[in-house]
Amino acid sequence: MDALILQSDFGYADGAVSAMYGVAVSVCPQLRIFDLTHDIPPYDIWEASNRLIQTVGYWPAGSVFVSVVDPGVGSTRRSVVARTTGGQYIITPDNGTLTHLIQHGRIVQARVIDETVNRLPNSGESYTFHGRDIYAFTGARLASGVIDYEGVGEQIDCEELVSLSVIEPVLCGRVVTGTVDVLDVRFGSLWTNIPRSLFLQTGALHGGCVCVKISHYGRVIYQTVMRYVHSFADVNIGEPLLYANSLDCMAIAINQGSFSRAYSVGAGSNWVVELSCEEA
Amino acid sequence: MDALILQSDFGYADGAVSAMYGVAVSVCPQLRIFDLTHDIPPYDIWEASNRLIQTVGYWPAGSVFVSVVDPGVGSTRRSVVARTTGGQYIITPDNGTLTHLIQHGRIVQARVIDETVNRLPNSGESYTFHGRDIYAFTGARLASGVIDYEGVGEQIDCEELVSLSVIEPVLCGRVVTGTVDVLDVRFGSLWTNIPRSLFLQTGALHGGCVCVKISHYGRVIYQTVMRYVHSFADVNIGEPLLYANSLDCMAIAINQGSFSRAYSVGAGSNWVVELSCEEA
Amino acid sequence: MDALILQSDFGYADGAVSAMYGVAVSVCPQLRIFDLTHDIPPYDIWEASNRLIQTVGYWPAGSVFVSVVDPGVGSTRRSVVARTTGGQYIITPDNGTLTHLIQHGRIVQARVIDETVNRLPNSGESYTFHGRDIYAFTGARLASGVIDYEGVGEQIDCEELVSLSVIEPVLCGRVVTGTVDVLDVRFGSLWTNIPRSLFLQTGALHGGCVCVKISHYGRVIYQTVMRYVHSFADVNIGEPLLYANSLDCMAIAINQGSFSRAYSVGAGSNWVVELSCEEA
Repeated sequence: MDALILQSDFGYADGAVSAMYGVAVSVCPQLRIFDLTHDIPPYDIWEASNRLIQTVGYWPAGSVFVSVVDPGVGSTRRSVVARTTGGQYIITPDNGTLTHLIQHGRIVQARVIDETVNRLPNSGESYTFHGRDIYAFTGARLASGVIDYEGVGEQIDCEELVSLSVIEPVLCGRVVTGTVDVLDVRFGSLWTNIPRSLFLQTGALHGGCVCVKISHYGRVIYQTVMRYVHSFADVNIGEPLLYANSLDCMAIAINQGSFSRAYSVGAGSNWVVELSCEEA
Repeated sequence: MDALILQSDFGYADGAVSAMYGVAVSVCPQLRIFDLTHDIPPYDIWEASNRLIQTVGYWPAGSVFVSVVDPGVGSTRRSVVARTTGGQYIITPDNGTLTHLIQHGRIVQARVIDETVNRLPNSGESYTFHGRDIYAFTGARLASGVIDYEGVGEQIDCEELVSLSVIEPVLCGRVVTGTVDVLDVRFGSLWTNIPRSLFLQTGALHGGCVCVKISHYGRVIYQTVMRYVHSFADVNIGEPLLYANSLDCMAIAINQGSFSRAYSVGAGSNWVVELSCEEA
Repeated sequence: MDALILQSDFGYADGAVSAMYGVAVSVCPQLRIFDLTHDIPPYDIWEASNRLIQTVGYWPAGSVFVSVVDPGVGSTRRSVVARTTGGQYIITPDNGTLTHLIQHGRIVQARVIDETVNRLPNSGESYTFHGRDIYAFTGARLASGVIDYEGVGEQIDCEELVSLSVIEPVLCGRVVTGTVDVLDVRFGSLWTNIPRSLFLQTGALHGGCVCVKISHYGRVIYQTVMRYVHSFADVNIGEPLLYANSLDCMAIAINQGSFSRAYSVGAGSNWVVELSCEEA
């Protein structure tokens, strides 16, 4: 019996998530079911992809994730289950939700869900809630062992999986350039796609100064020198800092403030971050 | 051992829900406890009633729902447990929370909670948190088998249960009229109380055009022809659509937009929806 | 196997809470994990302390609480586990989160977490997410019996635990003075730190009138006579009331309205409440 973890853009205010839980509990009353989050902004596939890479690796092998951010529900988009290097499964519409996991080489196999057998009985007249009728149902059956991975459907080539376009971080001398991948919503930090290991190749040293430049559609909106430190408490309250976040990528924040609100910075490939190592 | 599912208007920001969980876990550490939602707008019995009919049927027989939207706490309003056609139980103040389940013929038996025996020990001095002291306690005891259904209290006639007034949808020739029962909060769709089966008696055909008229206190605030389709992906982004929702009732939405925000439409019996089948 | 209950200021919108869950499930797949709340306002140690005293006593002995409101993450602040009179455990940064439990005499023992042994393997490079790498990990190991209380680290004197400054309520003749400890966020009630037992020493009688005066930094912002009743339903809709809340302290509310919004009242030691018993 493995864990089932649900993610969606349904929010917590109505009964949608609980209907998914009910379907899963009906499949197997002993199933342990958890939430990743249901507060993905509506239709935001990119953020769903980010939240998966942020969490999947902390769950045991065999865990089954169901992610339902599905603007194309009712279209011909496929439903898939992907298998990660860590042995976790992700069930999702094949619409780009796996982008970050693919980009980091974490998807090793995939299958298309055969909806003729993997669908809640008597749900054929509902076309808008595949989260309940297909994804939660299939996820619960996989996590509880009613079906095995092969029972989901035909194997496909991982190359076929839909991926959103991604801009890779680039190192050039003492400067590394990347993008704001996602915001740490609650604390207003910017989480870039620049790995700490790549950043260190600029020659930056812990405790030293780094020039941080942020631009949006080519226009510079922030350019300041700040310190590269371990954590918030290493700078004064209200002071900006550069640090490695819990994904081991570079992040920018204000201690006990909100960087994203202070400078109206958002996330996405048009938000470019340039980190320049100051001369020692 | 059956599942316990909690609903309330307490929100998630303070300790109220967790105190209910603690009481339930103290009754039976192995009990499996889930949430329907705790974001019912404060005192909104109508919405609580809607969320129950949206979810109850997806849970196994024996599941125990506790719903605490209770503006009359401390008054003489009764506390009841109702049994559905599907064998689920609902524990709630008898204040209209069962309206939709009653209206759809889903309540088959009811009992009044005997608070002299079904109350958390040593909670007699607290008059404002029956959710914790009576409902969660009784729900946990029923779900875990400490008491059985008869142990809740005396049986009452289902006819005695409080029900809010409901306006039934009406078919007249090629026109069906109903009300906006509830909003799909997150996506801004209008969920009407018009069953798909009744709507089809207008002669409407899948893929065809339907005139949708919405009025508030008799004043028309929206009147447009749109297509009746399976799902969002059947229309362009930004286009309105009429579809059967996951409860198999008619719903109105904008693909990847919010209909309710776009036209400031709310829910309730004063929001009337008229669907007219266009001539073929 | 005991319950693990998580509290934080991380919110529900990203993957932080789910990463903590994943770590805990990886320690022990059968562990039962619950939330207190994750909507503590960012960095608000005072509110975290309040939510603990509101809930801890309703959970069974042996339950393990993890509370992560941690503005000092990465500083030299200690991490501790405290044991309550009821046999529950609280794992938290030692930053004042235990204030209310200490003040009410509910903490009987404490130990410092030895982070050299109680840390998620291979997490040494992450300095910003102790909630995941130390607290959830240690909490899961304690709740599941992988370590016992002694295995957390060295015992310390409870006197050493950090406590925020607290203003005690004072009785003077027929007048009792205290502060607004916390808001009941959802319903806008003011929860004072004045115990019902102290209030009754003013000579106030149930159903009688009490003069309620609220001041902020010494300026009176509300002064009205209202009735001391059991519950909301004892007054008219829209009428103010004084009652004993679910913690058995005095609270002020408007029936089906929001007192805090109506008069812009907040929580904290600068919000002083004076209750004067009217002559009989």
